[in-house]
Amino acid sequence: MLNTTIKRTARTENALASARWVRFSFAGRERFGTLAGRAIALHSGDMFAGARPTGERVPLDEVTLLAPSTPSKIIALWNNFHALAAKLSTPVPAEPLYLMKAPSSVAEPGATIARPPSYAGKVVYEGELGIVIGRHCSGVTPQEAGEFIFGYTCVNDITALELIAADPTFAQWVRAKSFDGFGPFGPVIATGLDPRDLTVRTLLDGQERQNYPVADMIFQPHELVSRLSHDMTLLPGDLICCGTSLGVGTMKEPVNTIEVTIEGIGTLANTFVLSG
Amino acid sequence: MLNTTIKRTARTENALASARWVRFSFAGRERFGTLAGRAIALHSGDMFAGARPTGERVPLDEVTLLAPSTPSKIIALWNNFHALAAKLSTPVPAEPLYLMKAPSSVAEPGATIARPPSYAGKVVYEGELGIVIGRHCSGVTPQEAGEFIFGYTCVNDITALELIAADPTFAQWVRAKSFDGFGPFGPVIATGLDPRDLTVRTLLDGQERQNYPVADMIFQPHELVSRLSHDMTLLPGDLICCGTSLGVGTMKEPVNTIEVTIEGIGTLANTFVLSG
Repeated sequence: MLNTTIKRTARTENALASARWVRFSFAGRERFGTLAGRAIALHSGDMFAGARPTGERVPLDEVTLLAPSTPSKIIALWNNFHALAAKLSTPVPAEPLYLMKAPSSVAEPGATIARPPSYAGKVVYEGELGIVIGRHCSGVTPQEAGEFIFGYTCVNDITALELIAADPTFAQWVRAKSFDGFGPFGPVIATGLDPRDLTVRTLLDGQERQNYPVADMIFQPHELVSRLSHDMTLLPGDLICCGTSLGVGTMKEPVNTIEVTIEGIGTLANTFVLSG
Repeated sequence: MLNTTIKRTARTENALASARWVRFSFAGRERFGTLAGRAIALHSGDMFAGARPTGERVPLDEVTLLAPSTPSKIIALWNNFHALAAKLSTPVPAEPLYLMKAPSSVAEPGATIARPPSYAGKVVYEGELGIVIGRHCSGVTPQEAGEFIFGYTCVNDITALELIAADPTFAQWVRAKSFDGFGPFGPVIATGLDPRDLTVRTLLDGQERQNYPVADMIFQPHELVSRLSHDMTLLPGDLICCGTSLGVGTMKEPVNTIEVTIEGIGTLANTFVLSG
């Protein structure tokens, strides 16, 4: 039994050294692979279960990147950073507090996202670390959680801010964060990272607006995956948006560029068109 | 152009007279078809786009029913019935108020659902009408909405009641309704129904606890699909749980049977095991 456990552990995040997985469209087909300089090493099979290199390479410039997984659910944390909780004078929660974003909100890295025609209020960017689940995950401990995490990605958790409290009887978190295009993530899923070392930086139109350490997270990734896995079964490709910290802001220009950068993962760049 | 419109309209809910669609497992395969007495007329293709009868029939008794669709998202309405709003003294909302249930919460008709080991509080049943989307649906009018509705189903929107307000800073609607098994629906998707004529009845251990008319809904199905389609793109198989009315209650027995019956659709029966 011990041997089996060791073999399973050997396939986990810490052992998957520094691969960066992408999904993309090439010659009319959806493919996936790992970054190799300015090329992609094509793989076949299942990204999360026994993917194998085909030996083919395609130049990165010749493909259209897609969101790096197709989550069956997107869980988004609220109030998960000490610094932001302190600034907003919200208490540190006893348990992870979260909502869901619709899978139909997913946008590709590089995509241009338009304001929804039905909403005229403020729209904010939120740069976040994303956890991508690699294996069917239910009721795991924090110590086991790493085995179920495939890797990490960049998220822009776009939010129609004025909808949240528009109705005094019911906070509309799901609606405010589920418009088509409000869930860009990528450009890669990076494996083999220690999330405690990471910093999330967000640039709005080239100016740094967020720069915060993942270590300030209230529920750290392994703890978070453990807790969430006691609420519901997490599936390969599912995305957990870890919440944001200081520096969230409104996109005010007719055309806004938002870049979320996490070293070791890369930069998720999207354009948000407010009007025009 | 007029002819085209008429042809498209001819494929909509009103024209799909009284078919009742099921998904099921038979001889180790997932199949789907329409009820024909005590048998199922097998179909091939896509339930939502050009399904065709294969000519084969299998006895209903020999299959294991599955949830009748595999929704990419499950939208659940809060405060959508006049009678319940009046009883709870909550104002009639200006817009649909909703959350999402995780797709991993789906349970089959007939399934036995267990209390989550991580939650010890009250669990309630909520009998509801479910709308199943049939076509890619974005920004449609209430007049067009019927064209995008495939049919109707029964839902038991199971809820871990005491989680909702457990944290004073954030209502945990998504978490309370997303435990594995908390989203049974079915047993069929019925096409060709006028939802305004329907009544939702819920029996707990054989005793009637809910009996309310769909006509009392604040946002009726066509209005609801129109409004939601302005928030996000609805996809074939997506499920909208229309909210519940009077008679919601706690499941108190070690083993509870909940039956949600809507005439023209059928009875969704599930067992909920509180302890044992």
